[in-house]
Amino acid sequence: MRSGSETSMTYQAPVDDIVFALKTAAGLDDLLQRGLYVGLDADTIGAVIEEAGKFGAEVLAPLNASGDKVGSKFTDSAVTTPPGFRDAYRQFAEGGWSSLPCAETFGGQGLPQIVSAAVGEIWNASNVSFGLCPLLTQGAIHAIEAGSSDAIKAKYLPKMVAGTWTGTMNLTEPHAGSDLGPLSTRAEPQSDGTYRITGTKIFITYGEHDMAENIIHLVLARLPNAPAGTRGISLFLVPKFLVHDDGSLGGRNDVVCAGIEHKLGIMASPTCVMKFGEKGGATGYLIGEENRGLATMFVMMNAARLGVGLQGVGVAERATQQAIAYARERRQGKSFTHNGSGASPIIEHADVRRMLLTMKAMTQAARMICFATARELDIAHLSNVDAERKAALDKAALLTPLAKAFSTDIANEVASLGIQVHGGMGFIEETGAAQYLRDARILPIYEGTNGIQAIDLVTRKLPLQGGAVVASYLAELADVIASVRVSNRPEFGSMAQRLTEALTGLQCATLWMGLNLKSKPEAAHASATPYLRLMSLTAGGTYLAKGALSEDAASPRVAVARFFAENLLTEAAGLAESVQNGADSVLIDAHGALFA
Amino acid sequence: MRSGSETSMTYQAPVDDIVFALKTAAGLDDLLQRGLYVGLDADTIGAVIEEAGKFGAEVLAPLNASGDKVGSKFTDSAVTTPPGFRDAYRQFAEGGWSSLPCAETFGGQGLPQIVSAAVGEIWNASNVSFGLCPLLTQGAIHAIEAGSSDAIKAKYLPKMVAGTWTGTMNLTEPHAGSDLGPLSTRAEPQSDGTYRITGTKIFITYGEHDMAENIIHLVLARLPNAPAGTRGISLFLVPKFLVHDDGSLGGRNDVVCAGIEHKLGIMASPTCVMKFGEKGGATGYLIGEENRGLATMFVMMNAARLGVGLQGVGVAERATQQAIAYARERRQGKSFTHNGSGASPIIEHADVRRMLLTMKAMTQAARMICFATARELDIAHLSNVDAERKAALDKAALLTPLAKAFSTDIANEVASLGIQVHGGMGFIEETGAAQYLRDARILPIYEGTNGIQAIDLVTRKLPLQGGAVVASYLAELADVIASVRVSNRPEFGSMAQRLTEALTGLQCATLWMGLNLKSKPEAAHASATPYLRLMSLTAGGTYLAKGALSEDAASPRVAVARFFAENLLTEAAGLAESVQNGADSVLIDAHGALFA
Repeated sequence: MRSGSETSMTYQAPVDDIVFALKTAAGLDDLLQRGLYVGLDADTIGAVIEEAGKFGAEVLAPLNASGDKVGSKFTDSAVTTPPGFRDAYRQFAEGGWSSLPCAETFGGQGLPQIVSAAVGEIWNASNVSFGLCPLLTQGAIHAIEAGSSDAIKAKYLPKMVAGTWTGTMNLTEPHAGSDLGPLSTRAEPQSDGTYRITGTKIFITYGEHDMAENIIHLVLARLPNAPAGTRGISLFLVPKFLVHDDGSLGGRNDVVCAGIEHKLGIMASPTCVMKFGEKGGATGYLIGEENRGLATMFVMMNAARLGVGLQGVGVAERATQQAIAYARERRQGKSFTHNGSGASPIIEHADVRRMLLTMKAMTQAARMICFATARELDIAHLSNVDAERKAALDKAALLTPLAKAFSTDIANEVASLGIQVHGGMGFIEETGAAQYLRDARILPIYEGTNGIQAIDLVTRKLPLQGGAVVASYLAELADVIASVRVSNRPEFGSMAQRLTEALTGLQCATLWMGLNLKSKPEAAHASATPYLRLMSLTAGGTYLAKGALSEDAASPRVAVARFFAENLLTEAAGLAESVQNGADSVLIDAHGALFA
Repeated sequence: MRSGSETSMTYQAPVDDIVFALKTAAGLDDLLQRGLYVGLDADTIGAVIEEAGKFGAEVLAPLNASGDKVGSKFTDSAVTTPPGFRDAYRQFAEGGWSSLPCAETFGGQGLPQIVSAAVGEIWNASNVSFGLCPLLTQGAIHAIEAGSSDAIKAKYLPKMVAGTWTGTMNLTEPHAGSDLGPLSTRAEPQSDGTYRITGTKIFITYGEHDMAENIIHLVLARLPNAPAGTRGISLFLVPKFLVHDDGSLGGRNDVVCAGIEHKLGIMASPTCVMKFGEKGGATGYLIGEENRGLATMFVMMNAARLGVGLQGVGVAERATQQAIAYARERRQGKSFTHNGSGASPIIEHADVRRMLLTMKAMTQAARMICFATARELDIAHLSNVDAERKAALDKAALLTPLAKAFSTDIANEVASLGIQVHGGMGFIEETGAAQYLRDARILPIYEGTNGIQAIDLVTRKLPLQGGAVVASYLAELADVIASVRVSNRPEFGSMAQRLTEALTGLQCATLWMGLNLKSKPEAAHASATPYLRLMSLTAGGTYLAKGALSEDAASPRVAVARFFAENLLTEAAGLAESVQNGADSVLIDAHGALFA
């Protein structure tokens, strides 16, 4: 056996785990009982996820390895996606998957965020390069919905919702990445109310491709005499092909792809350099108000951040499935529980079990955090109680950096463990395990690096409502942990104790942040990353424990929750220590002598 | 600036850090004072390292990215290494670098292990694909020295020592990897005292290439009627070209390369499938006793394990250097310490500093552990006091799994952080940061996976001398920590407290291992990996602290040691907790229902 067998590379959507996570972390039954999802019930939601699982497994997953091998190709400003992608995208659109979360006004199905999150995991587990295209289109739709005139909405959204056209986000320039302040793409107002856009954008995912009739670019640019920095940035819609008033396609706009990047992973997804206005200026339409483009773009980015978190969950799930399948097949040595002749499947070896359990537990914890975030977005969107909407929006804001950063960090850890489980075969590309790590490696970087997520959490999210948002969330976790403690179930091992310690650490670290944010802001920045990890581990462990409370003693979910508490959550106390006492040593010698 | 600039991809050997680590962790001055290294002094050693640094930076490092891009090519049983490799290898041999650590009897320079370790780091930092060739040749030389007749030594060693011929280790077969018991390559004794070798080996590094006149394969095979399992394995020397008694090359032996692997990394290093005896049997010569081949091979593997650990240190050092250089150049946002207009270099941002410090501190800690291991190998080899030699051999045995596993684990963590520091550019191959991660990913797998290292540490090394070896090592660490505590230096922050907690955790975990190894061996296996990490962090933190004790308050070494204690060693208590209370939850449901 030289390679990952067909079996071990097959993806099967973990529908039961997904539904369980929706019930546990997203409180699905509660949401349904509140009447939040008109016309929907748990069975329908389950059926949608089941269907998505089939589509992902049958149509998208088989293109994952071949898409990686062939990659998208660039010739003369055109991009050719790998064989099968075009047809898969057509089926995706025809199957109604692109319209699933969109507003019914524009032809969408109006399904809630929790369903969108569930199927988003599936698309990305099946094929993260493919999944990026609808993820970005979705983000563009959100931004247009949030900021456009009715005329623009009517002209562009129905085709984008239907998946006939796709969307992109054009933010980054060579000197403007994490900090968009210095971006220099220009927009000149024209007498007809349009703008001429000129500039170069880099790292534009699906900036050019052959899967859709048109591509709708959302572009950050600067008006003449706009204020410097981020307060002088406006957002424009720039279609690849101009669109007539009747919706038919007109001539080619002045925007071209100048090349695609040679990357570590997500090979099938073209990462484009886009040139706007090489022939005088691309025609653009203002979205939202002048100089307020970043606010609208943030609407899009926040949704996309949860989407990227779900990419992490998806890749982690896929890597875990393949590692488990391989560990069942591969035989080496004799385990303690082995009897009979011949070698044991390596899944029986304790150290391999530790790796597989780590993969499984981390993946499930990240999924729970992402779904909990989606729940709040649904309440924020659908509740008819003002205070509920506001509270949910704040809680979603608090959880979004966790969903993005933790899920994508663990995606890398899990994918790396997946390679390790395969031994030497893991390093051979045909096995498929290495691709997950290569694909996962971009996730902590794009849509705001994980360092920026941590700083966002600490500096913008902890202060929400004077700290009441985080306090309320910690109280919610404390309630679950109290239930675990009083349940006193022997099969929980020391779960209650580990959770309590972690929460105590998180409480102290949160207090420390509160005390230092204003007086020692640089120290708060220095401790942001361990703080985010601490909060994520505590939240993830608590969600897993909440799930375990509803299961019987022999349930694998109990075993995973206990493993998480006893082997992964043990990191929490040390993280709390680093947050509170580690910042000074990060900042010593801040002017560079240390790195001389 | 689109790519890692020339500056940021340049490697400069960290000669000062290497010499400092030799003084601190290897106790260089003490070894010199003992008269262990006849004819050597600190200046000479420093000069050798300096020269190696030049050779690495000037000859090997420039081939690292191009070697990755082009890779080794396979055509018709021949392997062509990337442009420049052949010539670089010739210069390497001519410069005397291949003979550096070898016995003078066969033309070597007889330099000690600590020097070999220092230059080994440099070769691998410069070019890990290149570094593998001398690493394996060195291992083959050791095995031949340890097990061969004088005639074989005289015939093969001088050319191998000179670097004219290279060596390989042929262990793995498709069904025999971590467990060599089932290997099925056969060896038939011939009337002339030679053996006919028949079988297929996989994952043979530099099994075929164009850099040397001959390749000396060391091959594990099974004699007819040999006992089953690992007690029936013998070791054979199988040259690519047969060698006449006068040392000149004869005809081609019956061994061919049948292909090379398409891998995630170390692209320039050919990983070969080797076929022995397709035309009736390759001629082989027995090394050591019949059926005792594994014992001799372990001589080779133990040396190679330290060598692989140093590959980890090398890759980590290179990734750290590039990340620091990039973080100095790249400007985004304004740091707290920034004044003036324009953006700050990202090295001023606290979260970037945390990443860079983590990279630097982990790399230095791993280097210290590797050099401490090399020290013991030198005493074991060179002391004229029996008891000293024995004690050093045991201590080297204890430290080798740490040197291998910890250094290679952190190499992956550091390389991944290096990508993160580069942001989006890190994901673009031309930047060079991604290669370090791709190259590093094999290190925790080959020469015994890191899981196997952990089990080796726990099941074979902790019981050495009834536990006295580990007890003595913990006492050695405790002495340093006591000095840190009594020094009471304010610039040490909470270093003493963190070290004391870590050591306490390690002591408890070691006691737990001692109590459980026999009564609950599967639990000991389950906790082996966190135990190895705990011991490595404690050892690494202690060596860094020992170094800090000899430095003044403003020294960057003090800052790094303190950062390590306050931000990385904080993981120790949680690891100790997992070791002692986490094993049960690894083992629950051991028959597979959990992974249904």
